[in-house]
Amino acid sequence: MSQPINVAILGATGAVGTELLELLDSRNFPLAGLKLLASPRSAGSILTFKGEKLKVETVEASSFKGVDLVLASAGGSTSKAWANTITQAGAVMIDNSSAFRMNPDVPLVVPEINPEATAHHRGIIANPNCTTILMGLAIYPLHQVQSIKRVVVATYQSASGAGARAMEEVKIQSQAILKGENPQAEVLPYPLAFNLFPHNSPLTDRGYCEEEMKMVNETRKIFNAPTLGITATCVRVPVLRAHSEAVNLEFDAPFPVEKARAILAQAPGIKLVEDWQKNYFPMPIDASGKDEVLVGRIRQDISHHCGLELWLCGDQIRKGAALNAIQIAELLMEKNWLKLTGSPLTV
Amino acid sequence: MSQPINVAILGATGAVGTELLELLDSRNFPLAGLKLLASPRSAGSILTFKGEKLKVETVEASSFKGVDLVLASAGGSTSKAWANTITQAGAVMIDNSSAFRMNPDVPLVVPEINPEATAHHRGIIANPNCTTILMGLAIYPLHQVQSIKRVVVATYQSASGAGARAMEEVKIQSQAILKGENPQAEVLPYPLAFNLFPHNSPLTDRGYCEEEMKMVNETRKIFNAPTLGITATCVRVPVLRAHSEAVNLEFDAPFPVEKARAILAQAPGIKLVEDWQKNYFPMPIDASGKDEVLVGRIRQDISHHCGLELWLCGDQIRKGAALNAIQIAELLMEKNWLKLTGSPLTV
Repeated sequence: MSQPINVAILGATGAVGTELLELLDSRNFPLAGLKLLASPRSAGSILTFKGEKLKVETVEASSFKGVDLVLASAGGSTSKAWANTITQAGAVMIDNSSAFRMNPDVPLVVPEINPEATAHHRGIIANPNCTTILMGLAIYPLHQVQSIKRVVVATYQSASGAGARAMEEVKIQSQAILKGENPQAEVLPYPLAFNLFPHNSPLTDRGYCEEEMKMVNETRKIFNAPTLGITATCVRVPVLRAHSEAVNLEFDAPFPVEKARAILAQAPGIKLVEDWQKNYFPMPIDASGKDEVLVGRIRQDISHHCGLELWLCGDQIRKGAALNAIQIAELLMEKNWLKLTGSPLTV
Repeated sequence: MSQPINVAILGATGAVGTELLELLDSRNFPLAGLKLLASPRSAGSILTFKGEKLKVETVEASSFKGVDLVLASAGGSTSKAWANTITQAGAVMIDNSSAFRMNPDVPLVVPEINPEATAHHRGIIANPNCTTILMGLAIYPLHQVQSIKRVVVATYQSASGAGARAMEEVKIQSQAILKGENPQAEVLPYPLAFNLFPHNSPLTDRGYCEEEMKMVNETRKIFNAPTLGITATCVRVPVLRAHSEAVNLEFDAPFPVEKARAILAQAPGIKLVEDWQKNYFPMPIDASGKDEVLVGRIRQDISHHCGLELWLCGDQIRKGAALNAIQIAELLMEKNWLKLTGSPLTV
């Protein structure tokens, strides 16, 4: 058992923050102390942890004194604003935002894929984007055996990816539509109830949205495969929680489907869900609240002799965010990588 | 103006049947008479057409006497059961089911793509599957300019594809879930409200479901491109009406994105919907009730120098079924192709 440490959650009241709390409890994370932090707007709330009521404090410079590890899930601007303060205070920050993911001095880690990258951190470790984590878990075990040449992925992303308020909005909109009303969108740009639309993250100059470029760039960084071809179409769908992805893989040589199935049946963090008799495969309602990414419908691509098709669903808040962050924290403790030997990174 | 003809709708009470009625009215189809037919279970209903109440009659051998054209939308087994009776009675059948689509003696027609195939009919003309029609409209204009080598498509299919009862089921399930209940699925195999799942059509021996193989085989037949590579992942989503598709295209040489956009802006049956400033692209709620297939997000594929990405939404009941059938009927009349010169096909 590792020596207990002092942990702070920055952004404790959000969808991911709530899940972090639940996981620290259910995984018996060795805590010496737990501090809940948030912006002034959300501070003051009371959250329960292991039966004890904890008050969410306003984040300020003194908040990180004595803290060993900060789990940050309050968005990119908050992470940027507090990163140097956190690392100067001697704490390590595991950041859920996209702020530092592509910084070459910041490890971007999925513990099942590139745990060794964590060793070289300089006070900040980035947690990848949800869609990237889920796809990475499913395809990296194949990539290890035979390099993937190209990925064509289409996503089916739940409202939870836009936060707890978006989940609530979908419910309220659905209720209104069922009553025959014509609700307006406030949190998301367009109505999502009984509808869907291309992911609403800002578009880049090549027409890909930022969410899609995260899948491209983050996967390359995590796999250490800078030339891996990836194209993505990211779409929001009226599902509350758990993302799905239709993944087409091209290899340089044929990859027998039975070999792929056998590899994925053994792969960490994955559960094969394939009942071909019942036409039963991964579904968001089955992936919700689960640690594992559900993978199924592994098929030989009939349009390409070196292609494979697969289908996955994973809990976007859990393995797509909070669980991956907690697993990084557990890895740091297990390997004794928490304490910095050099000076912390300044960002 | 063509000479008015006697038309029968077989399966008048279903989602497509209702739409056929609406289109015969709104397009001022030249009708001498209109007969509504259905199975004994649905017969007896009263439907309104141009303000007049019409009784739905039970289909029987004598139903087709004096009928020039039958629009069949009562499913494959009904089409198979009545096809020979219909053609022997001297009527032409435009069939919405999959029963005869791959029969080499049956033209499979999208009027914007292969109208000339209609000329050679022998009494039966097949209407393609909804996902096939929608994708075909968007990609054929490009294929004409530069042959498509391979298509990787992922679909987002609405409940309407499983009929009016499935649409109702999604609403009832949504209501129940919003009340905190845990509803069971009856029409569809799994709950679709706030969920999604791979298309529930029967699986073929290579792991593709029948819906996916329709996209593969029907597209090849319509395009007259028997070796065109196509792989599809078909997914049902909790949208009421209108399907969406994420389409990745590979060509033998680069296809400039601006050229593709210019071609699609002129293409029949399509409407370009791309507001890059507002991140506004085709959505099912905007495609519902529309004749055009909405196409947008045309991008150069960053993973393949000869690749293009595009996104489309189309009303699955309208252009995906009823409208396409009516357009075939209009084509038959315009070209004077309704009367057979030889003997009718026996199936």
